[in-house]
Formats: sequence, structure tokens, C-alpha cells
Amino acid sequence: MKYFDVVIIGGGPAGVSAAISAHNTYPAKSIALIRKEEIALIPCGIPYTQATLPDVLSNTLPDGLVTQKAGAELIIDEVIGRKANTLHLKSGEEITYSKLVLATGSIPSSPPIEGIDKEGSFLIQKDVKYLEKLRAKMLDSSDIVIIGGGYIGVELVDEFLKHNKKVTIVELQNQLLPATMDFEFANKLESILKERGANIVLGRYVKSLAGNGQVESVVLDDGTEIPADVVVTCVGCKPNIKLAEIFGLRHDPRYGIKVDEYLRSSEKDVFVIGDAAAKHDFFTGELTDIRLASTAMAEGRLVGSNLFEIKVIRKYRGVLGSFSTKIGNTAFGISGLTELKAKEMNLEYAVGEAITVDRHPGMVPGASPLHLKLIFARYSHVLLGAEMHGGDSVGELVNMLSVMILNKMTDMDIDTMQIGTHPLLTASPIAYPVITATVDAIGKWYQADVT
Amino acid sequence: MKYFDVVIIGGGPAGVSAAISAHNTYPAKSIALIRKEEIALIPCGIPYTQATLPDVLSNTLPDGLVTQKAGAELIIDEVIGRKANTLHLKSGEEITYSKLVLATGSIPSSPPIEGIDKEGSFLIQKDVKYLEKLRAKMLDSSDIVIIGGGYIGVELVDEFLKHNKKVTIVELQNQLLPATMDFEFANKLESILKERGANIVLGRYVKSLAGNGQVESVVLDDGTEIPADVVVTCVGCKPNIKLAEIFGLRHDPRYGIKVDEYLRSSEKDVFVIGDAAAKHDFFTGELTDIRLASTAMAEGRLVGSNLFEIKVIRKYRGVLGSFSTKIGNTAFGISGLTELKAKEMNLEYAVGEAITVDRHPGMVPGASPLHLKLIFARYSHVLLGAEMHGGDSVGELVNMLSVMILNKMTDMDIDTMQIGTHPLLTASPIAYPVITATVDAIGKWYQADVT
Repeated sequence: MKYFDVVIIGGGPAGVSAAISAHNTYPAKSIALIRKEEIALIPCGIPYTQATLPDVLSNTLPDGLVTQKAGAELIIDEVIGRKANTLHLKSGEEITYSKLVLATGSIPSSPPIEGIDKEGSFLIQKDVKYLEKLRAKMLDSSDIVIIGGGYIGVELVDEFLKHNKKVTIVELQNQLLPATMDFEFANKLESILKERGANIVLGRYVKSLAGNGQVESVVLDDGTEIPADVVVTCVGCKPNIKLAEIFGLRHDPRYGIKVDEYLRSSEKDVFVIGDAAAKHDFFTGELTDIRLASTAMAEGRLVGSNLFEIKVIRKYRGVLGSFSTKIGNTAFGISGLTELKAKEMNLEYAVGEAITVDRHPGMVPGASPLHLKLIFARYSHVLLGAEMHGGDSVGELVNMLSVMILNKMTDMDIDTMQIGTHPLLTASPIAYPVITATVDAIGKWYQADVT
Repeated sequence: MKYFDVVIIGGGPAGVSAAISAHNTYPAKSIALIRKEEIALIPCGIPYTQATLPDVLSNTLPDGLVTQKAGAELIIDEVIGRKANTLHLKSGEEITYSKLVLATGSIPSSPPIEGIDKEGSFLIQKDVKYLEKLRAKMLDSSDIVIIGGGYIGVELVDEFLKHNKKVTIVELQNQLLPATMDFEFANKLESILKERGANIVLGRYVKSLAGNGQVESVVLDDGTEIPADVVVTCVGCKPNIKLAEIFGLRHDPRYGIKVDEYLRSSEKDVFVIGDAAAKHDFFTGELTDIRLASTAMAEGRLVGSNLFEIKVIRKYRGVLGSFSTKIGNTAFGISGLTELKAKEMNLEYAVGEAITVDRHPGMVPGASPLHLKLIFARYSHVLLGAEMHGGDSVGELVNMLSVMILNKMTDMDIDTMQIGTHPLLTASPIAYPVITATVDAIGKWYQADVT
């Protein structure tokens, strides 16, 4: 039987960041990280293992982060039981801990579609061999159907198109990315995918996969049949709560293992971080389905620092939801509330928009068009949401807007803010999109007051 | 004699943004903008009129911003006097105002160098014809010397190198960008310029320009002679206070026209914005020499909104100083305090650093190395400064860090913050530079406590 001061179960971003943070904070403590997978993957890189990267192994989360940067022992094994503070592993090994961190992640949802187990039908598993099999099969195929129009779905379409496959994506709602993007932005994304050759089917769902052993086609609810030799289902994921069940921790099957402000479970020495932990919405405080690597890692860092006493006071608890992606040559970014969510919340809001170019003057080489939409609370004047598409600068622009939302900046704060601009790097100071869209919103209020 | 509710003098970014903001806020008011120049230029684009852009006119600030977006009358003329609220123009025209905004900018400093008036010697004037003459002369030259190692100086070196000229830059201090960049970052910039063929002379100043009518060489204080058929002097600028003298407004010859929190001069109906207005440092409150288009435009927006009553409460008064530039293929960004300035202020600080790649995994196409340095107050834990070099994403990353500094975020706030990451757009969530550098600083404090 081995003893470690800290044992972390799970080797994804949450577990790894908790290990690094624990070592950074408590360098004298012994740390072990137990994970099932021989090789850990970078979750958000998974779609890109299919075309942009040369192979699946290029998307590896290096073990050195655990063994060197976190000075931890890496144990490839599976936890199957526990007695007091001693964990039982599948190999027969026993490990005793002082503090335990569960970072067991999520598992892809598999909807009740007839024939979903046929050969050629895949989910998105965080598993090297599985993804290598998908890549090999996909390269050998001609017709691919993606079920589910979330981020992974649209990114996979873009990747498979790079191999000149015939790709169809089927989404139940009337737009792609229905949970996180307003209609006009989703519409832009759809038009780029269509230009690139994708077939987009909205407002329909898949009833069954047809074929004799190997999938041959996908049958929709209206009877339409779409040829397919590869089908990838990515309709979301659910928290992996298996250990909560075994250990008897308080949990919710849909939202995850219950935790307090400091990610402590119903047992005081057991922390839960990442996709396995239940999360709350930044704006409403309600339980939310949004599970992101960035949130998981913020939780990992917090728990790593606070294992033996609370050192770091948590400032931002709720999940803000900051997303970015790139389809073709256009980047998309979303942070906080969309207009659709504002309506669902019954929130009185105002919209500001800017349409500009991300370099100045606009003829500078490398300039891309940029469209930004901001959502403010109508009377509190607080920034609540941002959506945009443009060039690669969207990747950090969305993070800048996240910082503004997290800090509850108002339109007036943004209007009087100083930003840096440069011809070869940003929009012109006179057309800087964040300020232009803010001024647009302010202008609407002034006009409303006049009339 | 004409009457306007609002008269703005000066057509640079400050004046234009004040006009737009005034029209947005008070659509019923009549506005006139008076400027001397036939054509207005985008100030930060000026260096790029020499190579990146096809010509100087490509860097024009469009008149439509004044005449259409701000619905203002554009008057090309010069104010030479005033009686009560009536301005006298050079053309003989008289214009009466209710509110007056001075946005008369700055004029380039011309150091007392012997022979600086010779043919082939230039300053950086915001004037189309002058810059066209520089471009023509430069294209025809073989040896160029730049006097002054600030932003305009290093950007001009990079531009002139694109025409394969022999370029020397002379800076009095022992590094380029001495006022705004720590040594190791300036050093990186210097090494890029050297690789691209520049000759960099540090710790020296120019005593005289030699030549018979036309400049032929530059003579340094140690007697060294450097051949030159074009010399460009860019050693900073001073506020244009001419109208303050004529009107009898309170002013300081070095720092500019004195204003209150709302940019009101010593006369209650006269506002001053941009380079002409005296400014205070964000950290110390002292008068500062930093004059930026982004600050000028924040002032323009504030004054435009507050002309007839204070509507917008000012949140950030002091000049933060957010800069970005690009030399060769490397972008540089600085916001707030450098380590050098922290020392000068006698501030107890801690440094956090991150060396990473701006995409993930690092082999994704388009990835560039990224180096970030953050400065925190040692005991208050507040973020005070950021310096970085990397790919083009630096342009918005520096603005994100400005927002953090303006909001006085602490290391702990940043540690618990959520950011979005994407393989094709940002660093990995596990190596996200802002968080990695913050965690590095926190780690140092923990270790200091242990020892």
C-alpha cells in the first residue's frame, strides 16, 4: 500500500492543472495522478486530429506536465473502490490519500438511435486508438454524416471537408450551435460551411442508421435517407459520476457531483473539478450544461491551491461560457449572454454593433472583416455578452470581452477606457470594434431618451 | 459670421471622435470641425506610408467621418484669434460657438543639432505632401539614419529595410524604446532589426549633420561619421499650445494645456483633448509625456458626450500607456508599468513569466512563440504591467491585459478567471500565457513564505 498526501483521479486538463497548482503551492507534499488512459489528449484539439494535425498522437497532453512540472507520480490504472481513505485499483494496488481530487470528466452522450452500434458509427471518445480508427475509416470513406450541430460537430465537418469528403450535418434545432450563438452568427457559419461544400440539415433528427452490419445510410424523422459510410454522433456529454456513486457522494445524474464554492464535495477531504462537478450559470446561478476545458482548469488551479486550507478566494464562480472556433478562414467567438438567452431570462437588454476591419487602414496586408455584437443590460448598463466573427484576432478579443463581463464593466466604463491599436495588428482607434459597438448602444439610449 | 453650437479645432483622432460622439449624444446640435490640413492622416499609420502601404494617401482619415458620421461642417482653415465666443480665421471668416473643443495635437520636437535644416533631413510631420517628399527622397537614397529609438523610429527602420536601404538608428539611451520597454524585450527587438540588416547605435547622440546643402553624413558625439543621404529625426513631440497662448488658457509649455477631470480648461466652455491637453500617469498621478491616439480618442468620446452636461462619469483618468508594434514578423505589446518604471517608482513588485506558443498543439500551422512578463504589486497582489512579444495575437492580448490592469485585478482574480481557448486561435488552456505567468508569480510568493 502506497501513501500520497494528494491523489488526483483523472488526467485531463482539470486533473493536470490541479496537480501543477498543488505542487506549486505545496512543494513538500507528495502527489499522485491516476488515469485510465495510456496517453492523455488535449480535448479541444480532438477534431483537429482528423485533418489539420498529421495524426492523433500529435494532440497529446505531455506526461511531463504531471511527472515533471507537477513532480507527481503518474499511475496508469483505474479506481474501482474505496475503504476509508484507501483507494482500490483495478490492478490490485491500494493507495491511501490525505486529500482526494476527482477529475473524472464526462462521457459522450449516445442517443437512442436505432442501429447506432453498427460498424462505421462513432462517438467522440478521448481515446487515441478510437480516434485513430475513426481517422482511418474516414479517410477510406466517401459519405460522412455528423449528428449534432455543436462545436465538435461543426469543427469535424470543416476537418472532413479538408479531405474532400461529402459531409452532411444534421441538427434538431433550426440553426447550428443553437445553445451558444445567435441566429445571424450561426447563419454566417452555415454559409461558410455550405460554400465549402457541406450539406446542412436543420430541424430534423436521425431516426436510425441503416445497413447490414456496416452503416450504409442515415434515416431522418421525415423518412429522408442520406448515404453514409461513416457517422459521427456528437450531441453533447454527461458528467462521469461513477465514482460518486461508488463513494456515496452527493450528485445529480444530469448535472454532476455537487460541490460548494471551493469545489468540495459532500465529504470534506474530497474535491471535484472539471466536467464531473456540477456547475452554475454566471448570470442566473442555475445549474448549467456548459462544460469547458477553460472552466475545468480554473477549477483545477483553485483546488490545487486550496487543498490544505483556503488560500485563494474565489471571485468568479458561475460558468461564463467563452467559446471560440474557426471555420474555413473565419474565426467565431462568443462570451456570456446571447440575445436569445437574454430573451429566455426575460432580461431587458440593448444591442450595440460594429462592422469593421481588424487592421488599419483596411488595405493593410492580412486585414479581415470583423463583426461584433454586444449585449448590455438596458438600465444597469452592464456588459453581459459578446458575439463576433472575423480574423484570428477573435481568439484573444473574445477573452478581452470575457474579462470585461467578469468585471461587470458598464458601457460608460468601456467608453472611457484606453486601448492600444496598431496598423498591422488591430482595427483603427477610430473604428475599434469594442468601443464602436459600445458607443452604438449608448447612442440608442440617448435617442430613446430624446423621443 | 456663422454660428455653431459646437466648434472643434483639429481634425486628428481626438477631434474626429469628439465630433462623432457629440453628434451621437446631441443630434440636434450644429457642429463644425476646423482643421488646417487639406487631408487628415491616421497618425499610427504614418510609418507604414513608407513601404507597407502603396502611398501616403492610402493612410487618409476619411472626411466622411466628420461630414457624414458626425453630421458636421468641415472647414479647412486656421484659427488665428478670438473675441468673446467668436473665432477669427485666417481666411477672414468669423465663427461663433457655444462650446469649443481644442484638439490641436502636438508638433514634432526638433533637437538643436547643427545642420538639421539641410536638404534630406526630415521630421515626422502629419502632412501628406511632406511625407510624400520623404518617401520619394528615401526611395532615391541608399543610406538612411534615424535619430531617436522610439516607436516611430523602430517602425521606420523596419519600413526602410523593406526597400533594401542601409539603415542606421541612433539612440541616446542604452536600448531602443527606453521609455516603455524593459531591456530584455528591447533586446529581442534589436536582434530582429539586426537580423534584418539594421545598424543600431546605442548610448550615442547626433552632434551635427554634415554636407554641402544636401546632407551627406551624420556626426556622432564621439566623432564617428555615418554616411546618410536621408536623415529622419523622431525624438518625440510637444503639445501644440499656440491657441492656449492666444486665448489665455492655463497651460504648461512641456506638458500641455491644463484640464480638469472632464477635460475642461480654465474657461468653462472650452474643452481640450488629445496631445494638446496635459495628462497624468495612471499609477502616480504625475504629469506624463505619453501621448497616444487611443488616449486622445477616449478623451474625445468623453468630451463629445459631456459638452452640455456631464453624462458620462470618467472611470479611468490617468494614462495607462498601452502600446503595440510589429517588427519583422514579431509583434510586441506593452501595457502599464515596466520593471524599470516600477523600480523608479520605488514599488515593491514581483514578476511572473510565461514562455509558450500561441496555438495548440504547437505544431498547428501558424503557431508563433510567445513570451509574456507580468508585474504585480508584491503585497497588494494587483496587476500593474504586462510586456510581451509573439505573433499577431499580441495586438488584442495587450488590450486584454490593459482591461485587467484598469480593473485592478489581482493575481488571485486572474487565477480563478475563465478564458476561452481554441487550437487554431490561442495557446492551450494548460499553457495559456496570462494565467501561466500569474501562477508563476503566485508560486514565488508561496515559496518565499516557506523559506
